[in-house]
Amino acid sequence: MTLGGFEARHVGLSVEGGVATILLDRPERKNPLTFDSYAELVALFRAAAGDDETGAIVISGTGGNFCSGGDVHEIIAPLLERDTKGLMRFTAMTGDLVKAMRACPQPIVAAVDGVAAGAGAIIAMASDLRLATPRAKVAFLFNRVGLAGCDMGACAMLPRIIGQGRASELLFTGRSMSAQEGLDWGFFSRTVEPEALMETAAGLARSIAEGPAFANAMTKRMLAMEWAMSIEQAIEAEAVAQALCMTTKDFRRAYEAYAAKRRPVFRGD
Amino acid sequence: MTLGGFEARHVGLSVEGGVATILLDRPERKNPLTFDSYAELVALFRAAAGDDETGAIVISGTGGNFCSGGDVHEIIAPLLERDTKGLMRFTAMTGDLVKAMRACPQPIVAAVDGVAAGAGAIIAMASDLRLATPRAKVAFLFNRVGLAGCDMGACAMLPRIIGQGRASELLFTGRSMSAQEGLDWGFFSRTVEPEALMETAAGLARSIAEGPAFANAMTKRMLAMEWAMSIEQAIEAEAVAQALCMTTKDFRRAYEAYAAKRRPVFRGD
Amino acid sequence: MTLGGFEARHVGLSVEGGVATILLDRPERKNPLTFDSYAELVALFRAAAGDDETGAIVISGTGGNFCSGGDVHEIIAPLLERDTKGLMRFTAMTGDLVKAMRACPQPIVAAVDGVAAGAGAIIAMASDLRLATPRAKVAFLFNRVGLAGCDMGACAMLPRIIGQGRASELLFTGRSMSAQEGLDWGFFSRTVEPEALMETAAGLARSIAEGPAFANAMTKRMLAMEWAMSIEQAIEAEAVAQALCMTTKDFRRAYEAYAAKRRPVFRGD
Repeated sequence: MTLGGFEARHVGLSVEGGVATILLDRPERKNPLTFDSYAELVALFRAAAGDDETGAIVISGTGGNFCSGGDVHEIIAPLLERDTKGLMRFTAMTGDLVKAMRACPQPIVAAVDGVAAGAGAIIAMASDLRLATPRAKVAFLFNRVGLAGCDMGACAMLPRIIGQGRASELLFTGRSMSAQEGLDWGFFSRTVEPEALMETAAGLARSIAEGPAFANAMTKRMLAMEWAMSIEQAIEAEAVAQALCMTTKDFRRAYEAYAAKRRPVFRGD
Repeated sequence: MTLGGFEARHVGLSVEGGVATILLDRPERKNPLTFDSYAELVALFRAAAGDDETGAIVISGTGGNFCSGGDVHEIIAPLLERDTKGLMRFTAMTGDLVKAMRACPQPIVAAVDGVAAGAGAIIAMASDLRLATPRAKVAFLFNRVGLAGCDMGACAMLPRIIGQGRASELLFTGRSMSAQEGLDWGFFSRTVEPEALMETAAGLARSIAEGPAFANAMTKRMLAMEWAMSIEQAIEAEAVAQALCMTTKDFRRAYEAYAAKRRPVFRGD
Repeated sequence: MTLGGFEARHVGLSVEGGVATILLDRPERKNPLTFDSYAELVALFRAAAGDDETGAIVISGTGGNFCSGGDVHEIIAPLLERDTKGLMRFTAMTGDLVKAMRACPQPIVAAVDGVAAGAGAIIAMASDLRLATPRAKVAFLFNRVGLAGCDMGACAMLPRIIGQGRASELLFTGRSMSAQEGLDWGFFSRTVEPEALMETAAGLARSIAEGPAFANAMTKRMLAMEWAMSIEQAIEAEAVAQALCMTTKDFRRAYEAYAAKRRPVFRGD
């Protein structure tokens, strides 16, 4: 299977009904990231930008866990031997993953069961929507491994999702956020039992993929673009963006369906 | 009745005890917006800036609903016939409504019963405070009509009110937020039964109108101005703004009332 | 006792096990601030930047209250006699307190019992983490004394902690936020009984002080720096900051402890 022409080797990839599903799949180690899987995820999300058939993406892990973060043996140990330039190359590359996730036009649904730790917690955070099972645990545990909480955009993004105080607590203590906390705090949209997780995530992704893809991509783009704009600038930017969306056929399709009292079928153009 | 000298024709307007109440009033269609009512709302909120007698504004709808958004027949259908320039004129005008609401010095209390959809949801969002009845439903349903969620500032403002993740879910799915969700998420300050809604909103608005109007307007101005400032810039800006407020008579009135063990009577100067 | 070489006269100060505890201590008046205690707090937090032995700071009040804000007799009354320049000097100085709290590298834990009002509410807000007792009441009551809610950064910081709508309500009405509301809204991380407050706060501060101090300070710095950055800028800034943290010995210590299956002992270098 390919996404935007890119074939995955280090992560699972399936595409069905306008929804691409990416699976971190090394369950015996709780799906850690390696240099290879990092690079491949960056490439996949970048390739997605050119894939008009895919309207939404699900990312999840196999074997009851989401992702345990950067592998201790395959990433942490080698980093200890790197020089300044080599370290910077690594952090720039992990940052590229979040940038690629924000830049890909498809909304991304993270389906989180079990452990989501370190870079795994970041991948969930950098998704657009998050579902969890009751046993999900999300740990921004960077300070437990001697590092700062400012990893891959966490000090900017986590406070906007769960609030500045809660984010500060998680980042300064490195403790896990439970599924219930994540739900109460707005990190997760919903919790479902483990056996229903993938189907629920696929259903949510499908319902988004059936929407107006051009407009959805514009929503995603503007949610990112308006991050640090003034209110006046944001209103101006949205006036232009929405006027553009009003020139799409999907806008007309919705009106015609309404007039005919039927459900609109969007085509993304 | 007039607000700042402006007389309303397309929406209801009453003024009493320092509180202006604006009512969307076409209950048989759940109070949709038309080109006329949009233009009038912009003009009303702009005129309010010159009205020193009014210290707070309530906005609500009649017949058990808040506002169903842009009318399908009177707005959506004509938009489909407009050229690029005409579309831009429309989105710039709807953006002007939110700008006028943010720029008017009086805090605005939205009293939301029943449906608040599309631009109706935006008007609630763009108010300073929001009250609801248990049957209120707020739907940022833009993607259901083939458009983007970035309408009139929603991608900037909604995430700051309810969090980035919850806002993303509402904008990507177009689903309704229930009154209970709105309360739990900080969109609504309180829910009250329908028969008590207008009186509760008027009471809240009156209590604000009885406060120090110059200082309240400064609070509103700075909440908007500091939206995208650094913390240092915000602290600097507030030092200047608060020093200015310390030169008002209301600051002295509060101290003298405290010394005399009575309640202060503010005059807004 | 001293913090970074600075000795306190107007507030209590104790240092133990890497944790400095600052106590507002004028319990008969609920620990109001005076010109002297303001100046001393600014000096203390500035001095903390040079204190490598201290990894976290607790701030609290004696006698069952946190802080009642600027003293009516010793601050408000004299302000009424000041000219423009004198008022500006005061608001710039109060702003300096928040700047010093944000600039000091140690995470600050506010332990809030009873009243936290006006500048007292601000000191809690400007801390990194907040604990409360069930009887804590936090009042941004500026408009009750004829002033604006934009005091010492409140219009910027409070919305990011509890959401824009809830912050607007508190700032426009001046009403108290209860401990339960503060917990539900993310202002407080936890509530504990009064008799356990100081020990709980000290324990939390100690656990932070035992972490990697250089990295923790970087987390605090970036949480502030990324306040108004774009997502892309934040990711870039974090890539540089985290690469720097990877050159510290604490990063290696964590790995070696993991490999040896023991708990890491961080030294902050």
